[in-house]
Amino acid sequence: MKEPAALADIQLTGDSRGVELQQVGVSGVDMPLCIRRVGRRDFHTWGRFQLTSSLAKELRGTHMSRCMSLLAELSRDGLSELSLTPLLRRAVTSLQASSAQISVDFQYFMEKGAPVTGLRAPMAYTCKLAGSLSRKNARELVSTRAAVVVPISSSCPCSKALAEEGAHSQRAVIKADFVLDPLENWDFLWIEDSIAALENVSSAPVYPLLKRVDEKSVTEQQFGNPKFVEDVLRDAVCLIRTWNKLRGFRVEVEAYESIHAHNAWACHQEGHFLEEA
Amino acid sequence: MKEPAALADIQLTGDSRGVELQQVGVSGVDMPLCIRRVGRRDFHTWGRFQLTSSLAKELRGTHMSRCMSLLAELSRDGLSELSLTPLLRRAVTSLQASSAQISVDFQYFMEKGAPVTGLRAPMAYTCKLAGSLSRKNARELVSTRAAVVVPISSSCPCSKALAEEGAHSQRAVIKADFVLDPLENWDFLWIEDSIAALENVSSAPVYPLLKRVDEKSVTEQQFGNPKFVEDVLRDAVCLIRTWNKLRGFRVEVEAYESIHAHNAWACHQEGHFLEEA
Amino acid sequence: MKEPAALADIQLTGDSRGVELQQVGVSGVDMPLCIRRVGRRDFHTWGRFQLTSSLAKELRGTHMSRCMSLLAELSRDGLSELSLTPLLRRAVTSLQASSAQISVDFQYFMEKGAPVTGLRAPMAYTCKLAGSLSRKNARELVSTRAAVVVPISSSCPCSKALAEEGAHSQRAVIKADFVLDPLENWDFLWIEDSIAALENVSSAPVYPLLKRVDEKSVTEQQFGNPKFVEDVLRDAVCLIRTWNKLRGFRVEVEAYESIHAHNAWACHQEGHFLEEA
Amino acid sequence: MKEPAALADIQLTGDSRGVELQQVGVSGVDMPLCIRRVGRRDFHTWGRFQLTSSLAKELRGTHMSRCMSLLAELSRDGLSELSLTPLLRRAVTSLQASSAQISVDFQYFMEKGAPVTGLRAPMAYTCKLAGSLSRKNARELVSTRAAVVVPISSSCPCSKALAEEGAHSQRAVIKADFVLDPLENWDFLWIEDSIAALENVSSAPVYPLLKRVDEKSVTEQQFGNPKFVEDVLRDAVCLIRTWNKLRGFRVEVEAYESIHAHNAWACHQEGHFLEEA
Repeated sequence: MKEPAALADIQLTGDSRGVELQQVGVSGVDMPLCIRRVGRRDFHTWGRFQLTSSLAKELRGTHMSRCMSLLAELSRDGLSELSLTPLLRRAVTSLQASSAQISVDFQYFMEKGAPVTGLRAPMAYTCKLAGSLSRKNARELVSTRAAVVVPISSSCPCSKALAEEGAHSQRAVIKADFVLDPLENWDFLWIEDSIAALENVSSAPVYPLLKRVDEKSVTEQQFGNPKFVEDVLRDAVCLIRTWNKLRGFRVEVEAYESIHAHNAWACHQEGHFLEEA
Repeated sequence: MKEPAALADIQLTGDSRGVELQQVGVSGVDMPLCIRRVGRRDFHTWGRFQLTSSLAKELRGTHMSRCMSLLAELSRDGLSELSLTPLLRRAVTSLQASSAQISVDFQYFMEKGAPVTGLRAPMAYTCKLAGSLSRKNARELVSTRAAVVVPISSSCPCSKALAEEGAHSQRAVIKADFVLDPLENWDFLWIEDSIAALENVSSAPVYPLLKRVDEKSVTEQQFGNPKFVEDVLRDAVCLIRTWNKLRGFRVEVEAYESIHAHNAWACHQEGHFLEEA
Repeated sequence: MKEPAALADIQLTGDSRGVELQQVGVSGVDMPLCIRRVGRRDFHTWGRFQLTSSLAKELRGTHMSRCMSLLAELSRDGLSELSLTPLLRRAVTSLQASSAQISVDFQYFMEKGAPVTGLRAPMAYTCKLAGSLSRKNARELVSTRAAVVVPISSSCPCSKALAEEGAHSQRAVIKADFVLDPLENWDFLWIEDSIAALENVSSAPVYPLLKRVDEKSVTEQQFGNPKFVEDVLRDAVCLIRTWNKLRGFRVEVEAYESIHAHNAWACHQEGHFLEEA
Repeated sequence: MKEPAALADIQLTGDSRGVELQQVGVSGVDMPLCIRRVGRRDFHTWGRFQLTSSLAKELRGTHMSRCMSLLAELSRDGLSELSLTPLLRRAVTSLQASSAQISVDFQYFMEKGAPVTGLRAPMAYTCKLAGSLSRKNARELVSTRAAVVVPISSSCPCSKALAEEGAHSQRAVIKADFVLDPLENWDFLWIEDSIAALENVSSAPVYPLLKRVDEKSVTEQQFGNPKFVEDVLRDAVCLIRTWNKLRGFRVEVEAYESIHAHNAWACHQEGHFLEEA
């Protein structure tokens, strides 16, 4: 019988392959996520997390259970700003790694009022936060990303110009991914503001609850403001360029064309988007 | 050392719980699917299969590998009609079961021409075939189902009536599920005909390839023919009721509203739809 | 110019097709969901809702915006028990329908302790609640369903018997769907209890956080307790049969076999499961 | 009435925003895909395509219908090698763009024999091909990527060392993404060879069809060869480094841990992986 007291730690076994790995850890971890917002009540949702770190070439394995402890801690403490840097610092220490990476996908909700009646209901926005931190020669490199998926509507300028009457319209989404300057204090208000601003580069926003007078208004706005995915993307790019504290961004627009079973799609990125994140 | 010659068959171990199970087998099995069509060349796609059978209360386990052999055989032989009954007969025999069930989900493609230029390109339709066979007192009960997902477009009658100009439109889908009379000879032409017929209960069909003159035509058709999901569903129900060899059907219409981030949805079923399948 | 004061209500237009529809409404609606638990603090998550009602043959369309108002109300008020009947009563009245149906899918979380160290972390369980209510001749028919997805592990008895050493094991899920007796008071503790009970019909439960001594324990439990999907299903069926206030149930077990790229799958249902829901 | 002969081409309207876009086109396009293999019969599957091109700052919109024509052509002609460069050349010309990008995701099938009985059945591998081509100062830059998802199994070295008997095992996947040297002649045999080679860095491969003697063999191989995701990743990295005509690669290993509901995950990339593709 094996000696239970021994409980060998196989992960610490040396490794002779000489390969340092960039990311090792846990993925697909669902946990509650409490968002602590300045001057407002906490918002509760849940996130799908990934937490990883580098693995030195001398070590055979990482400590997956420490990743889970760190995520459970984050789940208990909540998040008050967009930066995940404090957790990443604990991760590199706890995991004895030179770098660590985290990401979390979650649904965020905002009350949205109809354009005429003002009737309100919650509307969901899929968001993602991601961060990476690496230590090289006593220097710390940090990268933080925030991403939002904003549902909108588009109506087609070509279709409107060609047809006797009408124009085909469709649901579309703007997916924007921002590389944040980690020296800034980014809180969730910034997420809300960017969502609200991006909704306005559409033909018309979409709403959770519309009465007839609201539907009249949205239809007319949609029809009066036809835009290709290219137009939505260019307007989004011009808008985001004015947000001067970003290090980089990537924007994607996808329209679920109502005359096709496939989508119109456009994408553009600028700045330090492709750096290690 | 264990005697390799023994290779115990644990599945055949008796079971004392006294529970006969309705369905046991394999799921999530991807295999090539060749569709042999009368008077036309074979069509090649792949399917995601599930094959199960009942399990008598005296037996501990089924023979999963026999399910895989049967599916590999079906994958090699191909399918020339909508019925899966021959395979189910082999399954009940091979698996010594009183009933067997199969389903396969696959993409089917049809060339579709634009309404004015006639330019053609392939368009995908998600389909499903399912069958069940049970033997009770030397009598064989067979049930066969075929389902199609038909992408269409809808424009909103309410929006058109309210707005000065325009009407919101959107991509939508009709999901129709048919219980076939197993005495009929149902081949894939029937699937193609039902897809084509269902496309016409929309505000306008959707197309893979449209030139400007085609887009003008589709936009005008869409705008001239506004329909709620309720309208599309009722027209589909009225249409399908005229297909008099069906034992039952279920139709679902879902419109990806362009003024909302959620969907309008309607569903109706008639006949022996809920029988064991 | 159209008279804005008029704002025609196209939905109320008569319909001549003579088709009464079973379900019309909204789907894919994401909203916050607050679960009010007896003697414990509220639990906050979000749900994906569907709310529908029947549509009389004389009416052309339903009132989608009323569905959204009802869901927004439910989102604000929260849920303290598994029954959705109060909301369905408001729905049939508000929508002037003879029946209404609701369903909501959501992630529920429970703290789970490791088997030896007792270290705790949250673990996610996908749940669903669904209800239907119909009024016929001043009589009210109610059906309520609750479903849970319970991740477990299984190790293979056949593999263990055949191999010199070891046995293949894998992650698996038990999906259980219950038709509740609507006269009972079902609260979320019942959900928690059924999840905990179902975890124990596995080879071994799965855990969010395991230290080495815990991993030793779980591995030995898994290996010492090999079960086919058929075994897990039969044990689940025997267990659920003892829960004597259910009207019916359906249980499905799916094992993501570690020796295959496809799954072993088994399913069984009893009682009034197939009634209109 | 508008003059039909006019049919304005809104896409050609000038654009004053001065924003050149990197990618505009179609996504989510399902079409049949015929793979012409040297010395073997054609293989038929279908793909989900995306085709895009850059858009000069002077033009308002691209020609989505030309993207669809190009894809329909590719669907008709089939693919005999991994390079998509010929199509990208036609795309930049047809779309008057300085660069074009394409990707296609599809299921590829290979017959796989059981390790002892040799019994064969088809097994599915999810693959992706992607290419980009840009023209700058009469110079053509080409990048080609091929990716495969290879299902495998892993058994845990830590669990094996700790437990009296047994070790937890699970299904896992290796996702490998290769940047190919476009001067090479890469055909589908290369894809098959890389899948086969990657299957061997696992604890044991997975199979579609296993009889009892095969299951004994696979279980013993799995148990005799325990590997962390870190081990699988390092062995994959060492293997791929010997494939000396690649410009870069990215490998990801994900194990669906049978003692957890979340996954172990590891990732590593080398070479010119991050270049514009």
